Amino acid sequence: MTDRAFNFSPGPACLPEAVLREAQRDLWDIAGSGVGILEHSHRGGVVDGIFADAAADCRKLASIPDEYGVLFLSGGASTQFTMLPANFLPADGVADYLKTGSWSEKAIAEAESYGRVHVACSSADRDYSYLPASAETRFSERPAYVHYTSNNTVVGTQFREPPLIPGGTWLACDASSDIFSRPIDVSRFGLIYASAQKNLGPAGVTLVIVRRELLERTARELPSMLRYAVHDQQDSRYNTPPVFQVYVVGQVLRWTLDQGGLEAMAERNLEKATALYDAIDSSDFYTGTARPDARSLMNVTFRLPSEAFESEFLLEAEQAGFAGLKGHRSVGGVRASIYNAFPLAGCRALAELMREFERTRG
Amino acid sequence: MTDRAFNFSPGPACLPEAVLREAQRDLWDIAGSGVGILEHSHRGGVVDGIFADAAADCRKLASIPDEYGVLFLSGGASTQFTMLPANFLPADGVADYLKTGSWSEKAIAEAESYGRVHVACSSADRDYSYLPASAETRFSERPAYVHYTSNNTVVGTQFREPPLIPGGTWLACDASSDIFSRPIDVSRFGLIYASAQKNLGPAGVTLVIVRRELLERTARELPSMLRYAVHDQQDSRYNTPPVFQVYVVGQVLRWTLDQGGLEAMAERNLEKATALYDAIDSSDFYTGTARPDARSLMNVTFRLPSEAFESEFLLEAEQAGFAGLKGHRSVGGVRASIYNAFPLAGCRALAELMREFERTRG
Repeated sequence: MTDRAFNFSPGPACLPEAVLREAQRDLWDIAGSGVGILEHSHRGGVVDGIFADAAADCRKLASIPDEYGVLFLSGGASTQFTMLPANFLPADGVADYLKTGSWSEKAIAEAESYGRVHVACSSADRDYSYLPASAETRFSERPAYVHYTSNNTVVGTQFREPPLIPGGTWLACDASSDIFSRPIDVSRFGLIYASAQKNLGPAGVTLVIVRRELLERTARELPSMLRYAVHDQQDSRYNTPPVFQVYVVGQVLRWTLDQGGLEAMAERNLEKATALYDAIDSSDFYTGTARPDARSLMNVTFRLPSEAFESEFLLEAEQAGFAGLKGHRSVGGVRASIYNAFPLAGCRALAELMREFERTRG
Repeated sequence: MTDRAFNFSPGPACLPEAVLREAQRDLWDIAGSGVGILEHSHRGGVVDGIFADAAADCRKLASIPDEYGVLFLSGGASTQFTMLPANFLPADGVADYLKTGSWSEKAIAEAESYGRVHVACSSADRDYSYLPASAETRFSERPAYVHYTSNNTVVGTQFREPPLIPGGTWLACDASSDIFSRPIDVSRFGLIYASAQKNLGPAGVTLVIVRRELLERTARELPSMLRYAVHDQQDSRYNTPPVFQVYVVGQVLRWTLDQGGLEAMAERNLEKATALYDAIDSSDFYTGTARPDARSLMNVTFRLPSEAFESEFLLEAEQAGFAGLKGHRSVGGVRASIYNAFPLAGCRALAELMREFERTRG
């Protein structure tokens, strides 16, 4: 037990408490150097070790093949929305995007300024509450790449598997909200990006895993900071990087390994989400927002019978020490974000609160 | 007295210990919210307050006029090397750059991919050990803007005053390594940028102060993340920002105000640098690297009679608890970086070590 809330924030999200305790210590003095983690040169030995360990643990955790680069970049997923097409979508080319939520929409909008975007499928017709089936997906003739968002935080949908794509192209994935929440076969992707603030660490750094052969030919001349090849060649230290974020991500990766790795994470995450979906499905009072076959294990979204009930529920939850449950401003309702670091006890406690609320008000 | 080293790192650099103590506490739970600073939604009330306070304290500290925007961006000064010309240098235009060190060189290289760069003056002929006088500076006919680096960390030179520029243009300044080390008249600038990791906080955020009327007309279409106007309209939260860095910068700005503001900083910084320059000038053993009239109060650079002496000196300094004194890898020698948070006691202790080293080895 601690003095901290159960924090269901969609991101920045809760971190493992063991990692926070280490960070508290290392802010003052890391590795007996007499210098805190915020104050070390990014070219010195302490930071060399942090970057090397973070990349190595990332490779170990996800069995990343040697022919992939592991980069830690700044600028968030929003910068990746631009870097991906800037590097790989020629002005006269086409990239295929699966449109499954507001993050896909943003990625598409940025790509359209570099070349043509073909929307291979869309679930916009039903407010992104489902994921289109393979049979409904129509690819263009020769896409430069295919992009999708593996987990959609707003409505709470998640692909079970990466989509099947035609031969001769490659798959790019915005995995910001479910990276390392389950096993991943990196060899199926050309490029994976994930902003840290859900499963990896604090806001301010983005993990990029990229097949290096793709970096050999890019679509146009670009500023140094937008070129993946520059960051890969310089081990993510072309410029002064967000050292603290990489440090915390490294600690979280180590914690994830210590918990048993991605198989263990997947088991835990299923158990956590099931506790909540069971509470929804065993009741007529709560209604899940996402179609059951598309439900996310990261963001559990639901409605109550009225907005008045929802406001009352959110207030009661907050008073009971549950933070961050309000649904995204674009859709309302309730959203419980339960990334890797969120504890099972918190899911059980919320399910109990839901049942109690229904019993007394429903 | 603490268990920490005197940290002369050129950046990331030492931070006020009071700020580190607060950050240690707030990592676990900030403002009694039950949630740590890394784990709060960037759209929630706690972070709203952090961003508003940081911007307000910045305005107060430097008397920033209302017609300027105060932005906290990611990507470091290296991203500013690109954003500045991308926003303001038309493809058929010219921007004037003062070339006074390797950071100016990098800024010039990025600008050249957007338009023409006119080098208005250069001190490359003597390894950037001096700053060209106004009389040696030749501006182009109608520069889109004039760019300079106010403090050059590698050799240790610093402009006393912003350069005079022709009418009809405006001044852009890379103030990464001396922002808020002395009073600044913001109204003389169109845009000032400063990566945080010297005088403002940890690596991973860049302060941009920009005259808002400049944002009304930009040189070309750009990705959202590269447009100053987007970040200004969204109060630096167009995307998920590096919340922790903005939090620490806010604490450092508050600390700077508490210390008496920029006049007090200037006095302290002069006293600190003087302690070291006096040690250099009163000896034939140490030789300052920068020409005396161009000396930086932030980075004090000097040589010993031989590289063997330098290695020995650096080793002895490290054993005595002085960190980060090695000169930049491109020039060698010794560099003492003594930004705002570096204590006077550390400068006095280093001066004493220098005298003692000379007495026993010289």
